[in-house]
Amino acid sequence: MIIIMKPKASKEAIKKITCQIEEKGLQVHLSEGHEVTIVGVVGDKSLLGGINFEIAEGVDKVVAVTESYKLANRKFHPEASVVPVGSTSIGPETLTIMAGPCAVESREQLLETAFAVKKAGANFLRGGAYKPRTSPYSFQGLEEEGLKYMKEAREATGLAVICEVTSHHAIETAVKYVDMLQIGARNMQNFELLKEAGKAGIPVLLKRGLSATIDEWLNAAEYIMSEGNEHVVLCERGIRTYETSTRNTLDISAVPVLRSKTHLPVIVDPSHATGVRAYVPPLAKCAIAAGADGLMIEVHPNPACALSDGPQSLTFEQFEDLTASLRPYAKLEGRNLG
Amino acid sequence: MIIIMKPKASKEAIKKITCQIEEKGLQVHLSEGHEVTIVGVVGDKSLLGGINFEIAEGVDKVVAVTESYKLANRKFHPEASVVPVGSTSIGPETLTIMAGPCAVESREQLLETAFAVKKAGANFLRGGAYKPRTSPYSFQGLEEEGLKYMKEAREATGLAVICEVTSHHAIETAVKYVDMLQIGARNMQNFELLKEAGKAGIPVLLKRGLSATIDEWLNAAEYIMSEGNEHVVLCERGIRTYETSTRNTLDISAVPVLRSKTHLPVIVDPSHATGVRAYVPPLAKCAIAAGADGLMIEVHPNPACALSDGPQSLTFEQFEDLTASLRPYAKLEGRNLG
Amino acid sequence: MIIIMKPKASKEAIKKITCQIEEKGLQVHLSEGHEVTIVGVVGDKSLLGGINFEIAEGVDKVVAVTESYKLANRKFHPEASVVPVGSTSIGPETLTIMAGPCAVESREQLLETAFAVKKAGANFLRGGAYKPRTSPYSFQGLEEEGLKYMKEAREATGLAVICEVTSHHAIETAVKYVDMLQIGARNMQNFELLKEAGKAGIPVLLKRGLSATIDEWLNAAEYIMSEGNEHVVLCERGIRTYETSTRNTLDISAVPVLRSKTHLPVIVDPSHATGVRAYVPPLAKCAIAAGADGLMIEVHPNPACALSDGPQSLTFEQFEDLTASLRPYAKLEGRNLG
Amino acid sequence: MIIIMKPKASKEAIKKITCQIEEKGLQVHLSEGHEVTIVGVVGDKSLLGGINFEIAEGVDKVVAVTESYKLANRKFHPEASVVPVGSTSIGPETLTIMAGPCAVESREQLLETAFAVKKAGANFLRGGAYKPRTSPYSFQGLEEEGLKYMKEAREATGLAVICEVTSHHAIETAVKYVDMLQIGARNMQNFELLKEAGKAGIPVLLKRGLSATIDEWLNAAEYIMSEGNEHVVLCERGIRTYETSTRNTLDISAVPVLRSKTHLPVIVDPSHATGVRAYVPPLAKCAIAAGADGLMIEVHPNPACALSDGPQSLTFEQFEDLTASLRPYAKLEGRNLG
Repeated sequence: MIIIMKPKASKEAIKKITCQIEEKGLQVHLSEGHEVTIVGVVGDKSLLGGINFEIAEGVDKVVAVTESYKLANRKFHPEASVVPVGSTSIGPETLTIMAGPCAVESREQLLETAFAVKKAGANFLRGGAYKPRTSPYSFQGLEEEGLKYMKEAREATGLAVICEVTSHHAIETAVKYVDMLQIGARNMQNFELLKEAGKAGIPVLLKRGLSATIDEWLNAAEYIMSEGNEHVVLCERGIRTYETSTRNTLDISAVPVLRSKTHLPVIVDPSHATGVRAYVPPLAKCAIAAGADGLMIEVHPNPACALSDGPQSLTFEQFEDLTASLRPYAKLEGRNLG
Repeated sequence: MIIIMKPKASKEAIKKITCQIEEKGLQVHLSEGHEVTIVGVVGDKSLLGGINFEIAEGVDKVVAVTESYKLANRKFHPEASVVPVGSTSIGPETLTIMAGPCAVESREQLLETAFAVKKAGANFLRGGAYKPRTSPYSFQGLEEEGLKYMKEAREATGLAVICEVTSHHAIETAVKYVDMLQIGARNMQNFELLKEAGKAGIPVLLKRGLSATIDEWLNAAEYIMSEGNEHVVLCERGIRTYETSTRNTLDISAVPVLRSKTHLPVIVDPSHATGVRAYVPPLAKCAIAAGADGLMIEVHPNPACALSDGPQSLTFEQFEDLTASLRPYAKLEGRNLG
Repeated sequence: MIIIMKPKASKEAIKKITCQIEEKGLQVHLSEGHEVTIVGVVGDKSLLGGINFEIAEGVDKVVAVTESYKLANRKFHPEASVVPVGSTSIGPETLTIMAGPCAVESREQLLETAFAVKKAGANFLRGGAYKPRTSPYSFQGLEEEGLKYMKEAREATGLAVICEVTSHHAIETAVKYVDMLQIGARNMQNFELLKEAGKAGIPVLLKRGLSATIDEWLNAAEYIMSEGNEHVVLCERGIRTYETSTRNTLDISAVPVLRSKTHLPVIVDPSHATGVRAYVPPLAKCAIAAGADGLMIEVHPNPACALSDGPQSLTFEQFEDLTASLRPYAKLEGRNLG
Repeated sequence: MIIIMKPKASKEAIKKITCQIEEKGLQVHLSEGHEVTIVGVVGDKSLLGGINFEIAEGVDKVVAVTESYKLANRKFHPEASVVPVGSTSIGPETLTIMAGPCAVESREQLLETAFAVKKAGANFLRGGAYKPRTSPYSFQGLEEEGLKYMKEAREATGLAVICEVTSHHAIETAVKYVDMLQIGARNMQNFELLKEAGKAGIPVLLKRGLSATIDEWLNAAEYIMSEGNEHVVLCERGIRTYETSTRNTLDISAVPVLRSKTHLPVIVDPSHATGVRAYVPPLAKCAIAAGADGLMIEVHPNPACALSDGPQSLTFEQFEDLTASLRPYAKLEGRNLG
């Protein structure tokens, strides 16, 4: 931690701060410049407890030097992690493809989609049974019934299955049926849910919040990991900006940034990022080229009648064309695609 | 709903859309312009169910005409609402002042603060017992113990008390101790929590999400109201923008915008909006002048040692100066300040 | 300047950096912590010239300690500035009100408006003769003809007059007719224009760029001031965010932030900030309460037929009501309103 | 244009609006729904001149149906354009690579870089002679002297050369030395400069403004094109968002969005978008996969001592590695790389 003093901070003000720090057993390094004095704090800053130096007399600003996330931090875990999920895994040698409908609508819809995405090369089936919707009057999901269809689809196809959870109750139910839990963007800082996901005993896909910084996102992952669950995968799904020609703005730079900051795998969801079907294929290719470990793509037997997110869903044929077009990109990146 | 066709949409494409709409029992009004054809849809659009016209052949875009929130909508409830809380109320004739520490830290800290803010003119005591913190390693709150102190402070001072809730369990516990629940920014779209707050039987303060639009915010209020709880108050607390000189950007325009869109009361939290103590007084005055029904202000006996949000907390003396300076502004707006 | 090294930076890497700095005649203070080493640089950092320590071996990040703007910086000029304009002035004791049409459309329109805003209490007439419009097919302004009407309006009413300039040529022409130049949001980082405005010999109103940070804005003011023109006034007019219920988001916190960072006067333009007439009065009051030195308000004899920005313009009657309602707020803030 | 009336708009209000429209010779289509009436306007809306229906009595909102840019609009020019520049061209069959230093610093620096980027496969040399810098105290460029070196480098290597222009004077000078003008992000809505670039007689690269929407960007291109210059290329260089781990946020979705909205070529600048050297290679690959027609990359003989933007500049060796790694991606997209 570095404390930058105001240009005219008094000697007393500086003295008072250095005493407070030294009393707690930490060391101080003073740099007295022409204009300002800088107080470097050396040692375990958790010992400083509740002192808010920002408002101490004479202080201009306080700069943090180390990140608050540890388990997710690549500095302390230089090797890229591989997250095992069922019989497959997510990590540097694979291109994971999670595909399926935004919402599970019926047994037929889900099974039909499962076989189609399996055939096209996906290794995960996605499908929402608990749907967080902006309006209370929109379709809210089939809940446990939907999870049963997910399990059935897994047994029929061998695909790993993943489902979003939105409450303590949903986690308790979902772990009986699926291979991986998803925490959605709107719940990225629902810390109670993160802690429960950390205790669930199965891997967790953590989507980025609508306007979460990368540091907040990694701290959210830390909530899950600090409960004992190391199997966390991050999913970039677009952030909120002023631009309205896409539903969100895909922050593709997040892929290399995360690569340098964390050892956790990173996948990209171009369907939610853009909200527009025609933009999904170019952005899927681009995510692979940027180094993503996988993709999450919405696929529906009849997008024109989907109960949720139809405009961004691919038909089976479009998805098959997409996976075919992705193979050479996966190969260039040295990744296996199922 | 209005469907705008592409310039070269075929007659067949237009015909197909109008048939789909008419089959569902709605009426169509066609406007054929030089460049584009516009399809106006008249009737109850919920009958259209799962049709996604955005991706129908020949369609350029779809424009919604009516808002999806109804109970919160001023169009259907033109009178400004008054929300009764304990022995006080929030609404157009009052300037509500909620004050207290970010986190309840001890019985002494809370009671001392309660008496101080009461003396200065506040009518609510705020205090966090369940703290959503970015890092899992930060102080997470005293939980039920903190709520007990809140209740004790209410009994000792007569202040109404409000506390943030972050889970189903927290709601069940909090209703036993406090007068009003708070849903924080990070949980504004935690729809399960909103539904439970709607069933809790006491008023709810709904903070705006970090990057929520005003329409999403009103839809979140609708989640609470559609469970039967009409006593919802909105709290603007700053939105996320690119500007870093304040912690968030106070969207003061939200006050008059909400006034025109909803009948619900609106309060402003300048402490969280700025994160800087010195900016709280000018922005508190400005919120009153913009028409806010109240303020939420962080106050702490010793901000320099607060376990959470110290840099933005006022001392007792600063808070007393603040309320004194607010009185003439409240008077100009025709509002009573306790 | 502070250089924060990576956790495992080698002694050689640190040595190399400290040597580079000391060779240039500056001093180094090393703080060696448990995890990281921090290099504090003491002295005139302009001597470091072109060394980019960000990419030197072993460096994690570089933190600037002092602001790059000097003439605009309150640290070196603690007294609030008063900017004289014609026979009036802008500063802490006055509430300046600039009012008039977005665009000068005709002699009649301008003179009629000038008399109306004068009567209602404005002390400046604003009016655009050079209009920067998003589309090349929109009305672009009357240019020099419009400036002549501005001068005539000044002579007839005694109001000070201000006009936006968008090019070298426009500045050369405008100085012959008006009392103050305006640099618009779109040109806030048109550095050639800023330099020319700095040489123009009359005061300059500098609007904030659409997505300019406060630091960038003050650096833009520094461009004008470093050419010898100290008479700069800043105008907050809303920033670009994700929220669409107003045209821009009025960053009202900018008023107290600027107050702490600069001695230059600050005014607020609620008309451009919101784009909606009904929101102008509450936000005008709120700007005064936040501490602004003045307001810029769009007024038009017939907003329904204005060639530019009609939806946000007030009628004469609305403007008269507005200034009447502002007087008690100006009085509370200790400011004179003409 | 569509005018959406308020729920309780009177018949008189609707009548008044329809009369105003019909008086101007346009047609009206009325859709009277259960809740609201919609007024569709058919015909040439420029005839409506200065009527601002937004503030007419009874109006809720006005929705534009057609884009204001015409020459840049793909609806009226379905074929992708090829922009010829000197002996090369930018368009669908080529992968254009513009490389060079942020600022021209000396004859040696520029020539050395020109030979290196040519050898690695670039076909354009970029280099700034007029530098728009945030602070007036930063290096501002060599101006005409720098342009002379650009011309010399072109003659020595055969590379096309491109340089940013920031004023009328800079355009007049630059056309004597370079093949293509660049309008930088800060000047994207400097409409006077755009008009002058439209008359310059050579192709123009138009960078996206820091927070420009795609529609504003295409309107800016329209300013250049409406002066008779059809040879415009767009360059995505990152937009301003709340995320600070990169200098800007590369909006990679802009590539497919522009592809659908305009026929103009699109290139991507990952150096300015991220501000971090290590992120340039993955984002360069990703831009190609997203469908970009080219890249602009900063290269410097000694980035550690660059006078501008060193931290994001590649060394010659890094650039050579980059272009080698891009070749297979260009091939997959069916593009030739020099």
